[in-house]
Amino acid sequence: MAKRVAVVLAGCGVFDGTELHEASAVLVHLSRAGAQAELYAPNIPQMHVVDHVKGQPTPEQRNVLVESARIARGNIKDLATLDVKGLDALIIPGGFGVAKNLSTWATQGKNCSVSKEVEGVLRAFHAAHKPIGLCCISPVLAAKIFPGCEVTVGHDTECEQWPYAKTAEAMKELGCKHINSQVSEVHVDTRNLLVTTSAFMCNAPIHHIHDGVGNMVREVLRLA
Amino acid sequence: MAKRVAVVLAGCGVFDGTELHEASAVLVHLSRAGAQAELYAPNIPQMHVVDHVKGQPTPEQRNVLVESARIARGNIKDLATLDVKGLDALIIPGGFGVAKNLSTWATQGKNCSVSKEVEGVLRAFHAAHKPIGLCCISPVLAAKIFPGCEVTVGHDTECEQWPYAKTAEAMKELGCKHINSQVSEVHVDTRNLLVTTSAFMCNAPIHHIHDGVGNMVREVLRLA
Repeated sequence: MAKRVAVVLAGCGVFDGTELHEASAVLVHLSRAGAQAELYAPNIPQMHVVDHVKGQPTPEQRNVLVESARIARGNIKDLATLDVKGLDALIIPGGFGVAKNLSTWATQGKNCSVSKEVEGVLRAFHAAHKPIGLCCISPVLAAKIFPGCEVTVGHDTECEQWPYAKTAEAMKELGCKHINSQVSEVHVDTRNLLVTTSAFMCNAPIHHIHDGVGNMVREVLRLA
Repeated sequence: MAKRVAVVLAGCGVFDGTELHEASAVLVHLSRAGAQAELYAPNIPQMHVVDHVKGQPTPEQRNVLVESARIARGNIKDLATLDVKGLDALIIPGGFGVAKNLSTWATQGKNCSVSKEVEGVLRAFHAAHKPIGLCCISPVLAAKIFPGCEVTVGHDTECEQWPYAKTAEAMKELGCKHINSQVSEVHVDTRNLLVTTSAFMCNAPIHHIHDGVGNMVREVLRLA
């Protein structure tokens, strides 16, 4: 029987929602492996709306579930209805929406809070020993909730290829073990069943992101 | 030197903009082939905004260029600035935005008009004998502008797998030759240098869409 994987979205667009190319890669690789994706997003207002041409916030208001439905082609459910029973794994793609709508990492860093709903979902999969795949900025959720876990967001030294390396430093301050990795690589925390990869934390050609996310999906399904 | 390919977007989301998984597949396959994507969209209001959960229009107003920038991660230019010189090929992914924001196909079918800007761009690549890749609903633009051209939007007989087959019939009434094809296949009109594939016109698993778009990208680059 096909493995059922919950994919949790946080809007639609890198600067205020889910990074849609990472989400698309997750869905393509799940489909290729014969797994069934079940899409969810919280039914809450976005922290803000960013004009992706200007890179600046606008006065608009949008809803995370409604915008996430653009990635889901309409086939999406309220995160409040997610039941870990009947699901085999959880994947949360990256994008600033994770740090703005699923948590307050964008404004508070390591002092952030994770939304109650998202924390509940992560703890439910963890307690049920079902694997969790996180890419790009999403591993900060695990760093906050599962102290001592092992994750990667790429490299911990800032350079042109790794412009967001300070994230790794902040995660270490939370007590997690950060493993440096290339964009094509994943790190598997076998104790916590966490599979992480850097994706767009790396300044790399988009097919490298696509393939790295593919490796994450395959490891998640192997553990499921 | 890397081939430079203009990719024209029409918003962000299947029901009122560009089908973002098709756009993502175009960018992944261009990147994998070592080509350089240059993203463009018209700086105009969307025909309307659709709530992708309800599938219904909302009273909101959004701009096609600003929403397309979500797919482009901010790296996008006004279609009015596109200059065919220095570009090797053109690709227009599908989604209802093509039939709503780039043309009036969604409301007028074969009696539609194509926006002056989009028509100008298509005619410029055609006149310069540079290849044009179109997928999903986008081939209707070629059917309208290049009478007698050969295109595919999948199959011309409606069934569960081909829910939008009436599009092929309408295109035939415009005088073009429609070639039935599978989702993985492309049709190449060697006289007009048009490369078309059905993508989400087919009710198929998303990795089949991804791979079909990949075949379109490879044929476009071969002709460029």
